Amino acid sequence: MRAFFHPDQQLHDPKQFMRVGRICGPNDLPTRTAALVGALRTRGVDPEVPAEAGLEPAASVHDARYLGFLESAYERWACIPGAGPEVLPNAAPYWNGSPERDARPGCRSPSVVAEACYYLGDLAVPIGPDTWQSALASSHSAWAAADAVIAGDKCAYALCRPSGHHARADRASGFCYLNNAAIAAQRLRSRFDRVAVLDVDAHHGDGTQEIFYRRSDVMTVSLHVDPEAYYPFFTGYADERGAGDGLGFNLNLPLKPRAGDVTVLGALDRALEAVARFGARALVVSLGFDMHRDDPLSMLGVKTAAYGEIGRRIADVRMPTVVVQEGGYRVCVIGACLGEFVDGLRAG
Amino acid sequence: MRAFFHPDQQLHDPKQFMRVGRICGPNDLPTRTAALVGALRTRGVDPEVPAEAGLEPAASVHDARYLGFLESAYERWACIPGAGPEVLPNAAPYWNGSPERDARPGCRSPSVVAEACYYLGDLAVPIGPDTWQSALASSHSAWAAADAVIAGDKCAYALCRPSGHHARADRASGFCYLNNAAIAAQRLRSRFDRVAVLDVDAHHGDGTQEIFYRRSDVMTVSLHVDPEAYYPFFTGYADERGAGDGLGFNLNLPLKPRAGDVTVLGALDRALEAVARFGARALVVSLGFDMHRDDPLSMLGVKTAAYGEIGRRIADVRMPTVVVQEGGYRVCVIGACLGEFVDGLRAG
Repeated sequence: MRAFFHPDQQLHDPKQFMRVGRICGPNDLPTRTAALVGALRTRGVDPEVPAEAGLEPAASVHDARYLGFLESAYERWACIPGAGPEVLPNAAPYWNGSPERDARPGCRSPSVVAEACYYLGDLAVPIGPDTWQSALASSHSAWAAADAVIAGDKCAYALCRPSGHHARADRASGFCYLNNAAIAAQRLRSRFDRVAVLDVDAHHGDGTQEIFYRRSDVMTVSLHVDPEAYYPFFTGYADERGAGDGLGFNLNLPLKPRAGDVTVLGALDRALEAVARFGARALVVSLGFDMHRDDPLSMLGVKTAAYGEIGRRIADVRMPTVVVQEGGYRVCVIGACLGEFVDGLRAG
Repeated sequence: MRAFFHPDQQLHDPKQFMRVGRICGPNDLPTRTAALVGALRTRGVDPEVPAEAGLEPAASVHDARYLGFLESAYERWACIPGAGPEVLPNAAPYWNGSPERDARPGCRSPSVVAEACYYLGDLAVPIGPDTWQSALASSHSAWAAADAVIAGDKCAYALCRPSGHHARADRASGFCYLNNAAIAAQRLRSRFDRVAVLDVDAHHGDGTQEIFYRRSDVMTVSLHVDPEAYYPFFTGYADERGAGDGLGFNLNLPLKPRAGDVTVLGALDRALEAVARFGARALVVSLGFDMHRDDPLSMLGVKTAAYGEIGRRIADVRMPTVVVQEGGYRVCVIGACLGEFVDGLRAG
C-alpha cells in the first residue's frame, strides 16, 4: 500500500480554538503527523512526498474566491494594526430578508475582516502564517493517493493534515480548510463513473455532503455522533438525503453517544451495503480516529481494535480505495489506531 | 419631553468581545447609562421607570423561540462543565445545499451550544447572568416612550441599553438583543398607519431593516459608515431597497469614512425627505453617538455640536417622535452629545 505525506503539512500550527465560550489550546497538533507516519513505518509503509499539483486539486471542488481568500488572508490580516496572531471570524455572515435572499451571495465587502466572517465558519479554523501551505500540501497528498488508485493500486492512503471533511465549497470549519476527501473523489471520477465517500470520523462530514449534495455520480455516506448534541449540530441528520439530481445519494447514520464498537460496526455494515447498492466503482474513506474512547472530542467509546475490523470490512467490499486521514486528536492513540486499520485493510 | 429608563438596564455587564482576532474588553459599559441619565437631568428631564410590560414588546417583533433562548440560555449554559462565564457562539449556523435550502430553518439541535450558534450572530453579544433582565427592561423603556407619544406627547426619549438596532427577528448581534426601535415602531403602528424609523447610529441598522424589509407600513432609513469596510459588512448597501410589499420602503445612505459633519447632515436631509415623501405619521429615531469623532468605534469624525443640529432638523419635520438610544461608547462624550441633541430637538 502506498501512502502520501508532505512535510509542509506539519507547518500549520494553530494556537487556539473556542469551545463552550472559552479560548482553548489547539487539538490539531503538528505532532499528529509524526505519530501517523511512525505507525505507517511499523507496517513497512514509507510515505512518499506527493507531486506538486498547485491549485488544481483544490480548484476541482472549491470556489476560486474562497481559495484566493485562504491564500491571501494571513498576509492581509497581519497588516491590520492590533490584529490578533491568527485570522479568525468574529461574526456570522447573513443577508437580507427571508428564504430566497438567504443564499450565499458572495462576500460583498473586500475587507479581510469581512471575508474571514464569510469564509471561516467557526472559531476552529484560525489561519496562521503557514496554514495555506499546509492545507495545499494536504490536498496534494489526497490527489496523489487518488492518482495511485487510478493507476491501478488497490488501495492508497493520504496522510492528510489539516483534515478536510468539514470544508465546504466556499467555507472552512472544524479544523478543515480544503476538502481532501472530496478532492480525491473528484479525481477518481476521471477514471470511475461512480464514486462513494464513506466517512467514519466521529463528526458528520458536512463539507463533503454539501459539495456533492446535488450530484448522483458521487454518493456520500457518513456515520457519526448524532448532531443533536454534537458538532456540527446543523447537519448530519438521517433525513438529509440529497437534493435535485442528488436525491437519494446521501446517507447519514447518526449514532447515539456511547454507541460502542458493536453499534458502530453495525452502522458501518449498513453504510457499506448502501455503497454496494449504489454500484460504486471506487471508494474514498474519510478516516477519523476521534471515535476512539480516549479521544478528547469523542463520545462513541470505540476501542483501538475496532479500527482493525473497520479496515477489514472496508477491504471486503473489494473496491479501489483511497483512504484520507481526517480527525483523531489523542496523539498517543492515533498511531495504534492507524496500525490496526492498515492491518485490517491488508487482511480483508 | 418625557424620558424612560429602568435601573435594571445597568445590570448587563458583558466581559468581552472579539475584534480582529483578539478578545477585548467590552465597549457597552454599564456606566454609559449614568452618563446619559446625567445629561438628561442637566436639561431638566428626569427619566421615569417604564411600566412592567412583560414579553409583549419583545414578542411584537421577535420570534418566540429566540426569546425562549435569550431567557433560558445563561442558566442552561452555566450547567455545562467547564463552560465559559458568558454564553458565546463558536460557529456560524448553516444548512445544506444551495440557495433554496439556505433559509433559516430553525435550530434543530436542542443543545444550548447549538442554539448559541444559531441565535447569536457574532462574538459581541455575550449573555451573562443579567443580560436578559436588562434587555427586557430596555424593551420596556422603548414601549413606554411609544405609549407616551401615542398618548399625545410630541416627543419621548427611551434610554435603551442594551441597544437594539442590530437585533433581527431571531438573531442577536453587535451588542443588541432586542430591537427596541422596531418595538417602538410596531407599538406606534397601533395608532399611526405609517411609521418611519430613521437610524443615525454609525453602524447600519441591519436588524431593523430585516424586521421590516417586506413591509410597506414601516419605512426604514439608515445612514451609516459604508459597510464595505465596516461592521456589519454584509448589509447596509444602497441597493437594498426592501423586498415584496416592502420594495421601495428601505433606504440606506452609506457614508465614506471621515465624512464629517457637513456630509452627515446632508445625508440626514436626504433621509428626512424620504421620510416625508413616504408620508410617515410618526417617527422613531435610532440615535447613536458613535458617529462622534472620539468614539472608539467610529470613523465619521462628527463633532458634538452636530448632534444639536441633528436634533433640530428632526424636530423640524414636526412629527410625533420616539427617540431610542443605540450606540455610542465613549462614556465621557455621550452625555454632551445627548445634551446637544435634546437642546436641538427642543429648539426645532
